[in-house]
Amino acid sequence: MTSTINHPLNRKLRMALIGGGGEGFFGRVHALAAGLDQRAELVAGAFSSDPEKSRLAAAAFGVAAPRGYGSYRELIEIEARLPPERRVDFITIATPNHTHFEIAQAALKAGFHVVCEKPLTNDLDQAHELARSVARSGTVFVLAHGYSGYPLVRQAREMIAAGELGQVHAVRVAYLQGGLWGIDPGQPASRAAWKADPAKAGPSGTLADIGTHAFHLLRFTTGLKPQAISATLARFHAARPLDDYGHVVLRCGGGELATITVSQVTHGRLNDLSLEVDGNRGSLQWRQIEPDRLVVRRHSQPVQIHERNRRTAYSDTVRAACRLPGGHPEGVLEALANVYGDGFDAMIRHASGSSADAGPVIHPTVADGVEGVYFVQLCLTSHGELGTWKPWQLPSRGRQHDQ
Amino acid sequence: MTSTINHPLNRKLRMALIGGGGEGFFGRVHALAAGLDQRAELVAGAFSSDPEKSRLAAAAFGVAAPRGYGSYRELIEIEARLPPERRVDFITIATPNHTHFEIAQAALKAGFHVVCEKPLTNDLDQAHELARSVARSGTVFVLAHGYSGYPLVRQAREMIAAGELGQVHAVRVAYLQGGLWGIDPGQPASRAAWKADPAKAGPSGTLADIGTHAFHLLRFTTGLKPQAISATLARFHAARPLDDYGHVVLRCGGGELATITVSQVTHGRLNDLSLEVDGNRGSLQWRQIEPDRLVVRRHSQPVQIHERNRRTAYSDTVRAACRLPGGHPEGVLEALANVYGDGFDAMIRHASGSSADAGPVIHPTVADGVEGVYFVQLCLTSHGELGTWKPWQLPSRGRQHDQ
Amino acid sequence: MTSTINHPLNRKLRMALIGGGGEGFFGRVHALAAGLDQRAELVAGAFSSDPEKSRLAAAAFGVAAPRGYGSYRELIEIEARLPPERRVDFITIATPNHTHFEIAQAALKAGFHVVCEKPLTNDLDQAHELARSVARSGTVFVLAHGYSGYPLVRQAREMIAAGELGQVHAVRVAYLQGGLWGIDPGQPASRAAWKADPAKAGPSGTLADIGTHAFHLLRFTTGLKPQAISATLARFHAARPLDDYGHVVLRCGGGELATITVSQVTHGRLNDLSLEVDGNRGSLQWRQIEPDRLVVRRHSQPVQIHERNRRTAYSDTVRAACRLPGGHPEGVLEALANVYGDGFDAMIRHASGSSADAGPVIHPTVADGVEGVYFVQLCLTSHGELGTWKPWQLPSRGRQHDQ
Amino acid sequence: MTSTINHPLNRKLRMALIGGGGEGFFGRVHALAAGLDQRAELVAGAFSSDPEKSRLAAAAFGVAAPRGYGSYRELIEIEARLPPERRVDFITIATPNHTHFEIAQAALKAGFHVVCEKPLTNDLDQAHELARSVARSGTVFVLAHGYSGYPLVRQAREMIAAGELGQVHAVRVAYLQGGLWGIDPGQPASRAAWKADPAKAGPSGTLADIGTHAFHLLRFTTGLKPQAISATLARFHAARPLDDYGHVVLRCGGGELATITVSQVTHGRLNDLSLEVDGNRGSLQWRQIEPDRLVVRRHSQPVQIHERNRRTAYSDTVRAACRLPGGHPEGVLEALANVYGDGFDAMIRHASGSSADAGPVIHPTVADGVEGVYFVQLCLTSHGELGTWKPWQLPSRGRQHDQ
Repeated sequence: MTSTINHPLNRKLRMALIGGGGEGFFGRVHALAAGLDQRAELVAGAFSSDPEKSRLAAAAFGVAAPRGYGSYRELIEIEARLPPERRVDFITIATPNHTHFEIAQAALKAGFHVVCEKPLTNDLDQAHELARSVARSGTVFVLAHGYSGYPLVRQAREMIAAGELGQVHAVRVAYLQGGLWGIDPGQPASRAAWKADPAKAGPSGTLADIGTHAFHLLRFTTGLKPQAISATLARFHAARPLDDYGHVVLRCGGGELATITVSQVTHGRLNDLSLEVDGNRGSLQWRQIEPDRLVVRRHSQPVQIHERNRRTAYSDTVRAACRLPGGHPEGVLEALANVYGDGFDAMIRHASGSSADAGPVIHPTVADGVEGVYFVQLCLTSHGELGTWKPWQLPSRGRQHDQ
Repeated sequence: MTSTINHPLNRKLRMALIGGGGEGFFGRVHALAAGLDQRAELVAGAFSSDPEKSRLAAAAFGVAAPRGYGSYRELIEIEARLPPERRVDFITIATPNHTHFEIAQAALKAGFHVVCEKPLTNDLDQAHELARSVARSGTVFVLAHGYSGYPLVRQAREMIAAGELGQVHAVRVAYLQGGLWGIDPGQPASRAAWKADPAKAGPSGTLADIGTHAFHLLRFTTGLKPQAISATLARFHAARPLDDYGHVVLRCGGGELATITVSQVTHGRLNDLSLEVDGNRGSLQWRQIEPDRLVVRRHSQPVQIHERNRRTAYSDTVRAACRLPGGHPEGVLEALANVYGDGFDAMIRHASGSSADAGPVIHPTVADGVEGVYFVQLCLTSHGELGTWKPWQLPSRGRQHDQ
Repeated sequence: MTSTINHPLNRKLRMALIGGGGEGFFGRVHALAAGLDQRAELVAGAFSSDPEKSRLAAAAFGVAAPRGYGSYRELIEIEARLPPERRVDFITIATPNHTHFEIAQAALKAGFHVVCEKPLTNDLDQAHELARSVARSGTVFVLAHGYSGYPLVRQAREMIAAGELGQVHAVRVAYLQGGLWGIDPGQPASRAAWKADPAKAGPSGTLADIGTHAFHLLRFTTGLKPQAISATLARFHAARPLDDYGHVVLRCGGGELATITVSQVTHGRLNDLSLEVDGNRGSLQWRQIEPDRLVVRRHSQPVQIHERNRRTAYSDTVRAACRLPGGHPEGVLEALANVYGDGFDAMIRHASGSSADAGPVIHPTVADGVEGVYFVQLCLTSHGELGTWKPWQLPSRGRQHDQ
Repeated sequence: MTSTINHPLNRKLRMALIGGGGEGFFGRVHALAAGLDQRAELVAGAFSSDPEKSRLAAAAFGVAAPRGYGSYRELIEIEARLPPERRVDFITIATPNHTHFEIAQAALKAGFHVVCEKPLTNDLDQAHELARSVARSGTVFVLAHGYSGYPLVRQAREMIAAGELGQVHAVRVAYLQGGLWGIDPGQPASRAAWKADPAKAGPSGTLADIGTHAFHLLRFTTGLKPQAISATLARFHAARPLDDYGHVVLRCGGGELATITVSQVTHGRLNDLSLEVDGNRGSLQWRQIEPDRLVVRRHSQPVQIHERNRRTAYSDTVRAACRLPGGHPEGVLEALANVYGDGFDAMIRHASGSSADAGPVIHPTVADGVEGVYFVQLCLTSHGELGTWKPWQLPSRGRQHDQ
């Protein structure tokens, strides 16, 4: 673990949080994860679009009253005018999807680093526009795919890259939840009400909400590039006008076949994200509900379970992602904190004058965000045409982002 | 468990086995399962197309020399002429796929009951022809989908039928194996060499071999009827000219969505058949590697694990499928023996003059066989047209077979 | 798998069953397991001490009426006078504990091989007397510790013997059940009523019933010889006057430490037998509820899961204990059938004139039975003296039985 | 979750850390856990007995140079003289066992709250002395049994207290590690070298190190009070002169039987702490490697798995211990942070003038520390007399600590 005091800054990074003042929990998760290693502290926020709620939330978050802003605009405007030694360094955006774009644009324009919830935007043009803004600003942009911070997810990525599975042939990713069954169509809107409102959630429900995680996990661990996709979506719960179940088949450039299954209507699955990768020399399996274990199988050999364990980590990168010795369970806060930590490293590089992506960029970027939005859009198109294969035609990512 | 002495026969049923003399293991599995409850005994066989091998196998199987026949034709011809008190009652066909048709036709024509390995045939016309022969003969025809004999698979079927999951929305079935990686392209043909020969295995590899099991499990437990299917197949192993990986999406009549994933190239998965069913009131999950456990989940309730246990079985049918008290593990032999037991019940009904399907027909039938062959054919067609949805146009099954 | 026709006998072995006519299930388990490989068939029985029940059971077991005897005495007397080509070869004793001795003695005296349920007897003197009778008769005596027939239990034994774990230091065996909670003290006696009657079950309840299994598993897999034991027993359920929970610590000759925990009052554990062995180079773990998996751990290496798999079996002995390829679950019937198979091999050696224990004796023997009875007695003594260490003073076993 | 700004303090609590400057990881764990909810921040430390190391560690921990003290004495002396608005509020002691006493005494005398690693001391008299000092000082004393902070451990405790299992009869706790095998006797001392030095670790090795955790888990969840104990210890690894394996049987006041098994020589077990509780109406099971699941079993009912889930938490206390929604894995940092949070609540009560234990005291206290030390001592005595039962004669705890 790197020092909590980061040269050349030699201080904690200052965080502002947009969102988190409602009944949702993700604002708090961001605050906890960002601060976990004491490399950053939350000092400002616009926690709710309701100014009164925002001020109350500020107290709950331990943010001094003057910096509990009534709106993101106010926050950005005032913070931008603060002297460098007080001004926040980065802004975390944990608001409904449809607001990501304008907030992120404003933050980037004002020169702040950004950590943004997924999906990046509801609209592909906006996503591209954001990517251009990031390129222009030169600041750090982290997309909050927290799962990519799990040490054994990173180990899976490295084992695959090192050829431990041989040539990858097939991948299966699933993300199953059942939470929608807690929503009573007859009841007033709950905390996540906006997720059921296409004007806010965007044109997709479950696919945008968790399918983007699944897609990124596929990309992050295998580096496979889709060539064409075929999607079949469904809506089973009466309370929401958007897809809540879906199935996507992806043909990749080298003939690989991948499938992504997403559901928010599978009773009793809390957050069941899983990954299976088949190669011609081995296969692996990881499941979020047992994040500290990675199963590797090879024909006619005993099944291997790799546990999170600094002493036996596959590489220094994996080791660095472990806070505790093996056997001391770590969770998703630690995973998200690892993603934040990657971002912090980049912010410090930036502060020291070198390019933010001069070092290794392992955290999800705005380019991943564009891909995620494109993935959702292509799936919707394919589904609208009865699953017709749609070619993946996203222009190639910049060199350093490509895997 | 019913008595081993079956009225009105008051004796063990006499079994003949076609196949089983090579290096494959499934002939022996059939002999063990059929005899497990001492309701039947193997008394004759044509164990190999090589007469010498057949005679050697007869000794190994404990079949008296004169009834170790040199060919299935000889077996059927001679056995048919034996007096009823010596003649075999049923013939189990455990030979390569391409021979099922002619052997089953001959057996049916001679008036024998038949137990047949899957897939029923390699050709849909032959499958239909066989179904007509069964209807004509009035004899019992059991398709060897042994998995349908697991007590908790039967419990899943009954719980779904009773509405325990509410309305079923989605189903995911997977059957993953890795055995193909044990095949060295440079080596001489192994025991299952015929499975790599399209002339014998038919036009499909993995889909026919284990996809038919997965499809039957879907049908057996949920009763869902496909309306259209879209299939994407792949061939990853160099040693075999047939599909070894595949993914099928099924749209069903009531808007339900099902997926079937099959692989024989997933390193280290021995025989990993799994079932997941989502309803609007609950979901369930079963996996062959833990056959004695059925997981049922309901939103905001503790996860339930139903164990195989006669005392707490969901119904008498499930209880009857349990030989041992809970906690004494049972396996696939017992499951297949349950399917045989269903067939034996029907054979006894037949012997007593009532129709073979006068009682409950829970065992897979020739109609299931036709469906399986049609499923494979439709998948191949869809795959050949890049996954285009193909309508399911199989004429409806007879009443008593329909679920 | 060896041929079902056993040279020099060239026929199935003939089995008689004493017991099995009540509501218990173990008589049937023996019949199924003995017949599973078609190397033996049940042809006679004294199924109940109630002659009418015995005759009814005969029909249910498929035993021809004249050989459904009214008592074990009648069975032994009449069978002994039958000509060799009709007479039963072996007698399985599946009756309440207190009757094992007199039945086994009579069977041995009449020259029959014996398969006997555990515990061997309720009384140590009787156990020794039986061991002497076996020595005198020269016939085969198999004690029904079915768990020793699981392929991966045998693999554990062989891996330990081969030094895979290095020097063994510590062993933990537990056998947990909860079935007693199904017994209502206010209700009339259930099927296992005799197990609550000290006159029949003997001076111990749970320790004798399942503790003997646990102790044998310890001995069978590790070969460790106790030097002294300390036992603490308890009785928690009001319906039974015998121990239903217990904890035993064993000091072994080489300084090893073993513990055995038994319970029949742990709600919801059906039959949870588990084994953990620690050595200085590795540790292993096996659990009956997942009989097809053996976990092996070594410091700073991935956990290994060995699956039951003929192709990757640790040795020929293990391979021979597998009926089906890996991934096809096997259960306890198959395990018990393996123990029977060992006995059949010995019976055939005996029939061919060589000593029954001329070959490898892997099945539990009368010497194991004596040890089990001694183990129970010593535990009761230690418990009666508040857990005082009691030296293990059983005279050494004959050479070929010792491990 | 309570507000991070704690009334009446309205600020973060200030933490000092003694220890953590060596190669051990637990100092950092304390800093992370204490700061996780942003209710406290590390502002001072004496990180090593080597002043140079201490100063370097201060930087790594983000502690400003002047407050990176060269010794605990210096820290306490100087901090005590700081004005209340700068002075640290509490001191966490994460040093070798033999130093706990003098550091804690000094801290208490100076009026600081204390969080102390286990075992409390190596000597029972010192433990009692510390308990008296805590009583005198009236300050908060938290013993760092982090496992007691897991939400489902707390749920287990509450379910048992509420009678969900009926009358508790038996408990089995095990704590298995294999880390000692990583120590090469021929190598120079590693980070945990002091644990092998009786002058520092005290008279016990494994029992003191992790047996105290296991004992506290037993006490915390069941409230059972030992009446007598019998212990058998062993030393299997050549590199350490202290016990590394042990087995303890406890007879409790109501006739309950408990066992505690500890090992640091079980290859490949990283940190395997488990709890099993049997009552006459149900049983439960929890295992640290799956901290988010609690298994509850009742005879003839499906097994229940309770997952950590705020929406379905058993009580408000359990809910308060969950930071994230169900399905987002939490780990041991979060558990320890819960224990810290309990302590913070008490510190705030103290600051507001009410007694520190006026509110609910769920965190482990100095009384638990005394019990742990007594437990170790009694086990050593019993072991020294060959496992003779030793009566538990610790004077009763004060009312509010007793369960």
